[in-house]
Amino acid sequence: MPHIDLRSDLYGITSLLDYRKEAAEPLCELTQLLLRGESTLTESERELIAAYVSYLNECTFCTAAHATASCILPGGDASILESAFSGIDQMDASDKLKSLLKIAAKVQQSGLTLRQEDINNAKNNGATDTEIHDTVLIAALFCFYNRYVDGLATRTPDNPLFYEVLGNRIATRGYKMPADGYHALNVSSE
Amino acid sequence: MPHIDLRSDLYGITSLLDYRKEAAEPLCELTQLLLRGESTLTESERELIAAYVSYLNECTFCTAAHATASCILPGGDASILESAFSGIDQMDASDKLKSLLKIAAKVQQSGLTLRQEDINNAKNNGATDTEIHDTVLIAALFCFYNRYVDGLATRTPDNPLFYEVLGNRIATRGYKMPADGYHALNVSSE
Repeated sequence: MPHIDLRSDLYGITSLLDYRKEAAEPLCELTQLLLRGESTLTESERELIAAYVSYLNECTFCTAAHATASCILPGGDASILESAFSGIDQMDASDKLKSLLKIAAKVQQSGLTLRQEDINNAKNNGATDTEIHDTVLIAALFCFYNRYVDGLATRTPDNPLFYEVLGNRIATRGYKMPADGYHALNVSSE
Repeated sequence: MPHIDLRSDLYGITSLLDYRKEAAEPLCELTQLLLRGESTLTESERELIAAYVSYLNECTFCTAAHATASCILPGGDASILESAFSGIDQMDASDKLKSLLKIAAKVQQSGLTLRQEDINNAKNNGATDTEIHDTVLIAALFCFYNRYVDGLATRTPDNPLFYEVLGNRIATRGYKMPADGYHALNVSSE
């Protein structure tokens, strides 16, 4: 049961974006920019950072939604994603991506845990200033979203199909606010 | 030393807003809405929530800036602010504000720590759904800002006068992006 009165046909972040539309507009714009804007990181890689931070924050809704989107988008790979969740060092991914995910994991704890050696490691693996900046920004943004979604106890569907449909919508449409408002997904939550 | 190449005459969040102007625009809009938009919480109370969460996250720059703004704005009180930092129960403030700060402290840890009893406590003290929602949103937003500012090791001035000038600027001008870009504050950082 959500802690405040939210539309009962909407779930997770969607129910909050619907509740406070003035806040939703800049939030959607920022998220669209970071996860879908021009970048040398692929959309799938950026969704992976979002999913990984959400996983570390134990936010079921955001983890499932962004993990699905990361797998669906070009270059996405369910086995890479699963291996990230069991330990970055074991991942079958580029050293650059692994070092960026390690930065994201530090940011999840606190910005103060990030050390010069973590940055040097990423730079030695080919990461640019902008990629490091955007990784920190995405990781921090999901520390925000996870707290917003779980802090207000938004409804979290159990049905895995729900996240497949949502992940597909995120992958194909991105994060722009729908002009006609938020609609329930056509899939049972249970 | 910042982890990435930021303008050396700018500090804290200002140097990051200048670095990535496309992200700065929606961020400023969201912050202006939450901290200066229409609300039954005073601007000083909302700045206090921001300062308190930043204090819990040990973010020196954001704590000093928003603490100063909270004290300067109408109804602001340095002794209330100091007492908040040493323990909410000892604060000389309304029960409603105290229960909202307790919600903010839970959100700072994780959204998952917030319990129905925390919400009931706030509601019994007269907090509305919107006030609870906005408290969670502001607390989560500063968990974002604190990570962004400290994660990239932005420059943090030592000079207390710097934060007086910055706090005054925030209190009087709010968070709208300056049309002509960001300028250095006319005060030494040391």
